[in-house]
Amino acid sequence: MENWTALIRDIPDFPKKGILFKDITPLLLNPDCFAEIIREMHNALAGLNVSAIAAAESRGFIFGAPLAHSLKLPFIPVRKPGKLPAATHSVTYDLEYGQDTVCIHTDALKPGQRVALIDDLLATGGTAAAMEKLVSMASASVVTHLFLIELSFLEGRKKLAAPVKSFISY
Amino acid sequence: MENWTALIRDIPDFPKKGILFKDITPLLLNPDCFAEIIREMHNALAGLNVSAIAAAESRGFIFGAPLAHSLKLPFIPVRKPGKLPAATHSVTYDLEYGQDTVCIHTDALKPGQRVALIDDLLATGGTAAAMEKLVSMASASVVTHLFLIELSFLEGRKKLAAPVKSFISY
Repeated sequence: MENWTALIRDIPDFPKKGILFKDITPLLLNPDCFAEIIREMHNALAGLNVSAIAAAESRGFIFGAPLAHSLKLPFIPVRKPGKLPAATHSVTYDLEYGQDTVCIHTDALKPGQRVALIDDLLATGGTAAAMEKLVSMASASVVTHLFLIELSFLEGRKKLAAPVKSFISY
Repeated sequence: MENWTALIRDIPDFPKKGILFKDITPLLLNPDCFAEIIREMHNALAGLNVSAIAAAESRGFIFGAPLAHSLKLPFIPVRKPGKLPAATHSVTYDLEYGQDTVCIHTDALKPGQRVALIDDLLATGGTAAAMEKLVSMASASVVTHLFLIELSFLEGRKKLAAPVKSFISY
């Protein structure tokens, strides 16, 4: 995974002053590296009896959709309000300034399904914790979170009930 | 592809009154169908010497990322303003009411690259035409557009310079 980190670009002061943004787009330009990430995520779910993959818009889709395709599992998009056209469950959570909301179709998961939640980055854990709530509102369970990158100094995993696996930690 | 259309759900009056929204999320819950779509998109690019896949957030990522993974090609996310952290090209285009803007990193494409643009839906063609401009700003060329669904009565393909392939037409 040394070559993965070489392809993650630090962008200072984005999206605002004082934040060092981890830009994964150079990594997406390298097909061998992208394939290796999807393979490692695939392997990380072996033996966990996962029956669905869910990911939050937008960057979560970039890893979640190929992973669902690779594992031949249903893919469930978690979206911002106003994007999913049918009935939804929604969870609102606090940000540093303001609030955010994530939604899932009420018929996306069947009761008892075992879900893996995929995202590119674990920061403060607000989105991932809200996604855990969405899954439980659908009477399904979160088997694990997979994150390409974890900003461990933000201690986001403390907010999460399900196990967390990350591949790169800062 | 008959089973594809059976998995596309009509939602009346979404996102606003008078619009019949084509909801693809049931299709994403069917792994066989999702795999068939990615395979057909893969096959549609055979012999075209495509060297990069680009797709617009968010639903474009759901098809573009697995397709890039399947073809072992670079994946380039096209995003709304304020999302891509490094230097970008951007194109603003008119909507029915107001305007929208799409962006691409200036270093995402190399001059001369042959790009396939992927999206779930061709409607009026505004986003796709703007994406053609982004690619030409990077001195690369659009080999083809692939859309899962085309709303042919909106005549979006008339706005596009590159060839258009769609799999389902309404």
